[in-house]
Order: sequence, then structure tokens, then C-alpha cells
Amino acid sequence: MRVVDIITKKRGNILNPQGEELTKEEIAFLIDNYCNGNIPDYQISAWLMAVYFNGMTFQETANLTNSMLHSGDVIDLKNTDTLKGSFVDKHSTGGVGDKISLPLAPIVAACGAKVPMMSGRALGHTGGTLDKLDSITGYRSRLNSDEFRYVLAQCGFAMTGQTKEIVPADRLLYALRDVTGTVESIPLITASILSKKVAEGSDCLVFDVKFGSGAFMKTPEAAENLANSLVKTAHTMDKKASAILTNMNTPLGRKIGNFLEIEETIECLQGNGPKDVMDVTFALGAEMLTHVGLAKSFEDGVELCKKQITNGKALELFLKNVELQGGDTKKLMADVGKRRSVYMRKIIAKENGYLSLDAYKTGLASVSLGVGRSKTDDDVFADAGIILHFIEGDKVKAGDVLMEVFGKDEKCFDSSLPILENAIKITFEKVQTTPLILKTLR
Amino acid sequence: MRVVDIITKKRGNILNPQGEELTKEEIAFLIDNYCNGNIPDYQISAWLMAVYFNGMTFQETANLTNSMLHSGDVIDLKNTDTLKGSFVDKHSTGGVGDKISLPLAPIVAACGAKVPMMSGRALGHTGGTLDKLDSITGYRSRLNSDEFRYVLAQCGFAMTGQTKEIVPADRLLYALRDVTGTVESIPLITASILSKKVAEGSDCLVFDVKFGSGAFMKTPEAAENLANSLVKTAHTMDKKASAILTNMNTPLGRKIGNFLEIEETIECLQGNGPKDVMDVTFALGAEMLTHVGLAKSFEDGVELCKKQITNGKALELFLKNVELQGGDTKKLMADVGKRRSVYMRKIIAKENGYLSLDAYKTGLASVSLGVGRSKTDDDVFADAGIILHFIEGDKVKAGDVLMEVFGKDEKCFDSSLPILENAIKITFEKVQTTPLILKTLR
Repeated sequence: MRVVDIITKKRGNILNPQGEELTKEEIAFLIDNYCNGNIPDYQISAWLMAVYFNGMTFQETANLTNSMLHSGDVIDLKNTDTLKGSFVDKHSTGGVGDKISLPLAPIVAACGAKVPMMSGRALGHTGGTLDKLDSITGYRSRLNSDEFRYVLAQCGFAMTGQTKEIVPADRLLYALRDVTGTVESIPLITASILSKKVAEGSDCLVFDVKFGSGAFMKTPEAAENLANSLVKTAHTMDKKASAILTNMNTPLGRKIGNFLEIEETIECLQGNGPKDVMDVTFALGAEMLTHVGLAKSFEDGVELCKKQITNGKALELFLKNVELQGGDTKKLMADVGKRRSVYMRKIIAKENGYLSLDAYKTGLASVSLGVGRSKTDDDVFADAGIILHFIEGDKVKAGDVLMEVFGKDEKCFDSSLPILENAIKITFEKVQTTPLILKTLR
Repeated sequence: MRVVDIITKKRGNILNPQGEELTKEEIAFLIDNYCNGNIPDYQISAWLMAVYFNGMTFQETANLTNSMLHSGDVIDLKNTDTLKGSFVDKHSTGGVGDKISLPLAPIVAACGAKVPMMSGRALGHTGGTLDKLDSITGYRSRLNSDEFRYVLAQCGFAMTGQTKEIVPADRLLYALRDVTGTVESIPLITASILSKKVAEGSDCLVFDVKFGSGAFMKTPEAAENLANSLVKTAHTMDKKASAILTNMNTPLGRKIGNFLEIEETIECLQGNGPKDVMDVTFALGAEMLTHVGLAKSFEDGVELCKKQITNGKALELFLKNVELQGGDTKKLMADVGKRRSVYMRKIIAKENGYLSLDAYKTGLASVSLGVGRSKTDDDVFADAGIILHFIEGDKVKAGDVLMEVFGKDEKCFDSSLPILENAIKITFEKVQTTPLILKTLR
């Protein structure tokens, strides 16, 4: 096998500009030999660009996913006495105020499923689940594999980050894609997401694919393409999977930040969560429960999820997880509603009308405040963030406090406040918006 | 400027899948920084693949050509007292039996133009002008720049190879394209050819773009695309240029080899050349003379070329060039018709009918015989080759000697003869063929 022949096969020619489907062996040859250093970057980047243009079939994407996931450790959660049952995980393509994993995991675990959650950190305008959890005093978001299994067995869900032994091929390929203009390819994005989720040991996967200004996919059509590719490729790999398309034109919930989102999670689990956060949580939860056979239907799944809030079991499991992962639950509950940065500003409405609030700009402002990161080695601040007193579509009057803004220091307001002012629009008539949950793909 | 932004601009996106035209500055930034080692191979190969898919405008191709040609020495032939007049060169995309440069240069020089010819060596199934010249005892096909100017001033044309100081960017880019599936791109091929020809100091360029089995471009349509790109890009660079599309489904002339093609060149200059070789030579010559203002029309140009043969001036200049470049003209003329490899075979017609002879397979067989090279460091043999007693379209009878085949040794016939047998077809009815000269693009 010659690399140039595989590149050319995918690239096609005048008579067949779409190229041909690569075989399992050809894809494995590329990935295996790239990872062990036998194929240079310049051939892989040319191949990636050919894939950008000519795409991949679901079978090719599944083969790529398989080759990538076997480049490193593959976790077999079932291979222990203490862990039984069906494992189900959720992946979000990322957004602003997207804390859904935090209430979702204990709710689904409370229904009896096992939720092994490997999450990421904040980068760019989007937040990270692990940064939010780390704002809990004492919480350890890095577990080794034994600890992870133990916590999962004890409370039905465990939260950790990816180790560098999980899908090293993805780290290599992503670094190359990032500098060669080959990030925005549906099959490459699919294989990147799916290889990590499958390597982490889930049988069933539910995807929250976001569209809108604050999402990676800007349009519903682009999000649907990715969602369809994720679900179909997972099916090709004999995994149960579904995806919901959700709106990320405006932030989710009323709190954006690290500890602020932990706070909102507790409100959710106490039955006081914002409607949008609860709707997305219940939809994802119902999908997860249906896949593992714990719910007979989507509607049944939503009811089951709601019950774990009213009966207090989800909050109980959340606090048990905090304790198991080293967090101080007493301090956590005492901090709720009180722990705030001393650097604070209020943003006041300048006119009467209907509010709209752009997710992307709000996310950028929150990075300036200290919630997120511009570069992977930036620090994040637990107490920075934004509390929204009004959300998209609300009627506001001139003089209303629209939001409270908490910064890492005084200086950060110079850059963050102008971005936030720019994120806000007040219009005479209510702006028509796309529904929060647009579609489910199964 | 960031490389990834330039790649992405060419690559395009969902809303603009064709990408955007790159600026002169962006292209120069890529080429300059690639040549000095500041941009890695993996970014350039991704960009090359994006160019393969999205193409380039003639302006972009001209800018790429300009950036490439300034990566090394640019020869200014006019910057001397001894050299005056218009400089015109010809480029062929390569074929089997394609010795056209050899009679063409002295004919056009005899008309009064200056022909600074930088040619290549044999590779793959195609021969090389320099290898043919080197078969003349004593001939030196590597001239330094002073020698080149001197010979050009003395006899109106000079023959040499490219120095490695000419367009180093092309050598770097070609090596990368060769292993990344990005060779077959019209704008990249155009910039590669044109940058070398312009760096070599010609004001006027005539291209012989071949189509057919023995050509780089297999179909007339593909050849026309390349010819059009070469001519339009040259015009964009304020060069006079035209191209003729010629048939390379069957070998040119009746002799294929190194010394054998020198021999056929002398026959051409003596007025005994094969019709196809003369037709292409005159067509190219007439184009060249029109560009430099020495012919009023194409027809006038053809007449002028023919005159240089009947008056003996073209042969005189050819022999003068051989002498100036160190060749032994006495031995050369004595060798004509006699110098042959002792390893010889005849190929006999097996049936009655009309002959067709495939250029590509004949070229491959000639490589086995020792005429050409499979790899750049292979040796070539002066006396190996093929003499065709019959050519495409001729009526043959079973038992006729179709060709005499001369090899570098006995062993080489084992591989070359089966390929040659395969190149030959004898059919009951005459096969319809595309004309030798299909079209001229100006």
C-alpha cells in the first residue's frame, strides 16, 4: 500500500471527481502508520483536505473512528464485578451556559443507568464541565481509572477528564487539522467525537448538537448534518445512539460561570431550574433512558427524570458524587447564593422593549471575565460569571438591571463590558426565534 | 498573515465552497516562506490539495508563477552586448519519439530569432532532449551561463539543462506534490512549466501540449485545459504565447532512441524528415516566428521554416551548435545510419491489416531497452532504440518487418519485447484517429 495512492483514491480524478470509498484496511494503514511516525504530516494533511472536499461514507467514518479509538486505551467498564448494567454517555458540541451534563448525570443515574462521563475544559467562548466542578472546594475532577470505576459503582455516575492514553490519534490529527484548514469536516468531526466516546466505554450515546451563534455549527442545517453523521456512524458501529438539535443563539439558563453554574445545577436538582435547562436535560435524559431500556418511551423517560427531582434522589446522588470525588458538600451548600467575586458591575437596560442576548458575544465576554480560556494554559476563575435577570424574549424597561457581572479583577471589565453591551439588543417587537429543541434524530 | 487563513480562504466554506481568489501578497507569503523553511510541508500540502479542488484564476496562477520564478536565478539574456533581438522558446509536455526541439531550434534560429533552450532529461515513458544530445560524441549539454550566452550569440540557439538555481521553489513543490496526490492540477502544472520558462529569459513562448496515451494529458479536453491555462497565464504576465494541441496516441516520427533521434533530426534538416515530425516542427516554428515579428502570418512562418531546410542553413546551424557545444561533427555525420547497438531484434507482423501502435506502451518498452529512465538516477544508453518500418495507419502484410529493436543488452528484450508486441494492433479496417495537430490556442 502506498500513501499517495490512498490520497489519490479519496481525491478522485477528472472521470470520478468524488473519489472512491476507502477500505477498512486503507484507513487503518493511514492511522496506524501516522501514529507510529511512519507516515509524515504532509501526506496526512493532504489526505485530510481531500476528505474535507470529498467527504466519507458512514462506513468509512465508522472505520476511521475504529482505527482512531484503537490507537490508545479502550476502557471496558463491564470487566469488573462491581460494575453491572448499561453504560450511557452524553456529548454536547459545546455552548454558553451549557451545564446540562451536571444535572443530567445524577438524574439518569438515579433512574438506574450508569453514566461514565468524560468531559472537557473551557476553551474559546464555551465553558467546560470540569472547570465548573473544580470550583467546588476540594473537588477532584481528575480520577485514575480505579477511582473512576469506584465512583461510578458507588453513585451511578463519575466525572473525569480524558487521559492522554485515550485516542492519541485524535490529539495528533486535531493538532494537524487545526493548522491546515481541515477542522470543518463532518466525517472528521464525527470520528473525533465518536472515537473518544466509544473508547470511554459507553454502549449508548446521546448527542446534544447545538446550532446558532454560540455553537460550533452556526446553522440548523450544519448541525443536522453533524447530528446525522454522528448517529448513523454510531449505528454502523453497532452502538445505540440518538441526537437532539438545540438552539445556542442565546445562553442556556440564567447563570454563566464556574461556581455560578454549579449553583444553577443545584437549583435544577431542587426543582427550581430554568425552563430551558430543564427541557434540554429531560429530553437528553429520556433519550438515554430509552436506549438502556429503563424507559418504554420518550414520554415515559421524561416522567422518570422529573420524578428523580421531586423525590430528591438526583440531588442526593449529586452530593454523594461531590463527596466521593473529594468535594466539601457542607461548604458547597453554604456557598450557594453567596459565593461571588467582589468585582461586580450591573448592566442596565437603556430602553423599553424585548431583550435579545447573543450567545457567542456573551461567551466571549465571559472569557474576559475569567470564566474561560483563550489559550489552553490560561487560568480560570471559580467566582467569575454572569447572572441574567432577564433572558431572550423577556420584556424589559429602561433602567431594569439586565444582568450582574462578576469579574476576576477590576481591569477585566474594560474589555468584557463593551462586548456584553454589544451582545444585548432591545427591540420594539419581539424577535422570532428558532425553537429550543428543533429536532431529534434517532 | 496566518498560513491557515490563506489555506481556508482557498478552501472555502459551506456558504462559498469555491473559496476566494488569493492575493499576490498571500501567494508570495506562502511561496517565499516555504522556500526559506518558515512554513512546514504539511501546511503547503493541504493548500496544494485545496488548489487541486478549487483551482486558481489566471491572475492567481500568474502570481504563483511570479513568486516561484523569483525563488531563484532569473536570467536576463538581453543584459549583454552580444545578445540582441527577441528570445523565443518552446516547451513540450513530453511524448514518445518527440525530438521536435532538435530540428526546431536551428530552423527558427536560421530565420533570425534567438532560441535559448533549456530542456529536460528522460523520465518514465518519455524521452529527454538532453539525453539525445549527449549521445553525440563529445557533446556537452551542461553549459554554464557564460557558455550558454556565447553559444546563443554564435549560432542563434543553445541547448542546456536547468541549473538548480533556476526556480528552486518548483523542485520543492514538485517533490511534495509527487507524494501528496497533488500533481494533476492545471494551475499547479501551469505555474511549474511557466516559472521555469520565464526564469530562463524568453519573451515569447510556444507550447506543444500533447494528448493521448503517450502524453501526460490523456484526452484532448484535458490537454486543451492545460494549453488554455498556459497561454492565458502567460498573457496575464505580459508574455507572448500560444499553444498547439498535438496527438500523442502513437509515437512521433520513425525513430525512437537517443542517437536514433539525432539521426532523424539530421534527416529532417536534410529535407528527408517524416511528415508528422515536419508538420509539428513547422507549426511550432511558425508560431514562434509570428511572436517575434519575423513572420507576418502563420502561413508565412511555415514557408520561412521550410526555406531554412532547402537552403541548408538550419543543418549548418545545427552542426555549428554541435561544434560549439563540444561535439565531434565529423564522427556524428559518419555515425548516421551506422551507429546501432549490436543487440538487435526484429518484430514481424503476424497478420494482414492496418497497423496501430500505442505511444505509451512503445515508450515503456523503450525504457526497458535503455533509452529512458524509470528512476532519475538510472543510466541511459545512446545506441538503444526502435526503428519503425511501418507507422500508425500503414497497411501491413503478415511477415513484414514492423520494426527493428536495439537494446542495451540481450537480457532487456525479455521485458521490452512483450510490451512492444502489446503496443501493436493489426486490424482489418483502418482505425479512425484524431488529427495530428488538433487546435491552436493563441
